[in-house]
Amino acid sequence: MSVHERERLARVVLSRVGEPGELRLTGLVAELGAIAVLAALEEQCDLGGLRDDLAERLRTADPALELERAANLGIRFVVPGDAEWPGALDDLAHVPALHERGGVPVGLWVKGPLQLAEAVEQAVAVVGSRSATSYGADVAADISARLASSDYTVISGAAFGIDQAAHRGALASRGRTIAVLACGVDRAYPATHKNLIDYIGDCGLVVSEAPPGCAPTRIRFLARNRVIAGLARGTVVVEAAVRSGALNTANWCAGLGRTVMGVPGPVTSAPSAGVHQLIRARDALLVTNGDEVLEAVGPAGTFALADPRQPPRRRDLLTGQQRQVLDAVPVRHAVDPERIARTAGLRPARARAILSQLLETGLVEHCGGTWRLTEEGEP
Amino acid sequence: MSVHERERLARVVLSRVGEPGELRLTGLVAELGAIAVLAALEEQCDLGGLRDDLAERLRTADPALELERAANLGIRFVVPGDAEWPGALDDLAHVPALHERGGVPVGLWVKGPLQLAEAVEQAVAVVGSRSATSYGADVAADISARLASSDYTVISGAAFGIDQAAHRGALASRGRTIAVLACGVDRAYPATHKNLIDYIGDCGLVVSEAPPGCAPTRIRFLARNRVIAGLARGTVVVEAAVRSGALNTANWCAGLGRTVMGVPGPVTSAPSAGVHQLIRARDALLVTNGDEVLEAVGPAGTFALADPRQPPRRRDLLTGQQRQVLDAVPVRHAVDPERIARTAGLRPARARAILSQLLETGLVEHCGGTWRLTEEGEP
Repeated sequence: MSVHERERLARVVLSRVGEPGELRLTGLVAELGAIAVLAALEEQCDLGGLRDDLAERLRTADPALELERAANLGIRFVVPGDAEWPGALDDLAHVPALHERGGVPVGLWVKGPLQLAEAVEQAVAVVGSRSATSYGADVAADISARLASSDYTVISGAAFGIDQAAHRGALASRGRTIAVLACGVDRAYPATHKNLIDYIGDCGLVVSEAPPGCAPTRIRFLARNRVIAGLARGTVVVEAAVRSGALNTANWCAGLGRTVMGVPGPVTSAPSAGVHQLIRARDALLVTNGDEVLEAVGPAGTFALADPRQPPRRRDLLTGQQRQVLDAVPVRHAVDPERIARTAGLRPARARAILSQLLETGLVEHCGGTWRLTEEGEP
Repeated sequence: MSVHERERLARVVLSRVGEPGELRLTGLVAELGAIAVLAALEEQCDLGGLRDDLAERLRTADPALELERAANLGIRFVVPGDAEWPGALDDLAHVPALHERGGVPVGLWVKGPLQLAEAVEQAVAVVGSRSATSYGADVAADISARLASSDYTVISGAAFGIDQAAHRGALASRGRTIAVLACGVDRAYPATHKNLIDYIGDCGLVVSEAPPGCAPTRIRFLARNRVIAGLARGTVVVEAAVRSGALNTANWCAGLGRTVMGVPGPVTSAPSAGVHQLIRARDALLVTNGDEVLEAVGPAGTFALADPRQPPRRRDLLTGQQRQVLDAVPVRHAVDPERIARTAGLRPARARAILSQLLETGLVEHCGGTWRLTEEGEP
């Protein structure tokens, strides 16, 4: 058996006996490799029996059988060195821990037809509140649809609210989407999203750091958020109450030095308060649509947006003297051309000629020898 | 007559013959003073009659009579050197022109019982779209009420929409408000705001750079926006469509090096699009309420907001080991204490004891020997 395959088996064992993102574990594996860490663990147990339970779990571990069982469920275990391993995850090695979680996953359990590394070459995370408003869900779906139709993969967590809307938006535009779970990829959490998660497993990817069979726990959610941020070029937070889990994902994204984006909402809406805090603290770029997300995460210039984004107004097409006269026409009370000429600093005959030109633009109106701005001409 | 009174009379004439914010005029007056500029203008007319109309206006000007007529309407003309002149306006001398307007006003026509310099010592401009939504109007009124009740003067432009809501919010909390008009302070624009403007003139201040009798024109609006920004410590834009006039006020505020603030709204709302652009471009600080405005414009530390702004959650009050156990309790499917102990890395007896403690917090629940998180305990 090749060293790489032995390393994979060692990582299966560590994935089973350790917790996702367990700092000591990910740190040691990064330093020594999984084979050495596993050997040291086994030796430690032989010597002192420090943790009886861990010793028991190590003794009974059968990684080859574990991989076989997973394969029977359509699940593979992707580790560093595999063609499918996304290099973007390796950046996690350099990010400070959050909630005592951190480091590069020892491996990822993956289900679905896409090749993981290719699928995340262009990928954006779209995350947010489980108790989303219909506004937030609509915007998340719109943004995700735009991303997916521009060949970007949408990564989210399959939760209620924004996550669900993000996956659905991507699927609706026949794009790629990845669900990163806190539980095993053979399970569905929340249970009512079983169909959604199954569907993503059939056409996209379902990914977890936790091995098959694992239940979702709080630490697994926190570790999961780091994988979402680690797989994506940037993270869009659509709605997040103050202290929401989506902000944890945003923090991971910031720690990675990648682009955090936030979609604002009404200041009267609690589910937008966390996003507003992010933007206020200049920790997130305000985005209002998928094009602005693409501009932020795409290679420089690729998706650059024209500015200003409105068609030119009629006023922009006027000559300097035409503007000079227009600017001297009162808003409400019509006045005679002499007065307009005086305000504009032009001779009356010239002002009168220009007023006739302006009449054609619809910016001024004429009544009984006097002139005023139309509603459209108002400043 | 004192030099200062002669200067005032010269400024009355310049205010009448020039346009508000006319660059050449404000520039020359800043350099030479109004008496010298007026003398030069009169001489120029005598010499060449370059602009017949200007010569006519200069010949017929009677500044003393003009001041007397204004006084009969309760209007005074405030110029640099007066106790009531707000020093904050002098900063306009150093701001680049916008739309060919700029510089320090030659004077301000003022109506109302407040002392202008004192009233703007602590003042914030609250401006925005004329076609405001009810959301925008509500937020503008709330913010203005908060500012006014914290002894800040609310400055706005008496227009439909946000301006009106800002004045009303300040008045509702019995605070100070100033309406800066594009027309003369003896006129009301829009006409339907006559009662509002009259009321502000009775208890606050109505201010204009344009002399009494003047109609509002586009250039007067643009020049007016510079006065609003110049009088205020900072400018809050509540709703502004792309290319709205409120953004012109924001640009003046930025040019003055003062704090531009923007209130976000739904990304689906056109009247918020201009504000979102400002925030995206990092030209404005996102604010969601009056306290955040006060924090931004108040002396450092005065209105600093506590962070985090939410009461601590129950989880924050737990010990390290309690959290360790809580984090190992599954979200949905209850499991036995041995499994939780294993995930948490604790001995079963210790985990069981801690689970009993957690039961009292309401974060976990117990059913038939197994445990899971309550809804409140969910991450």
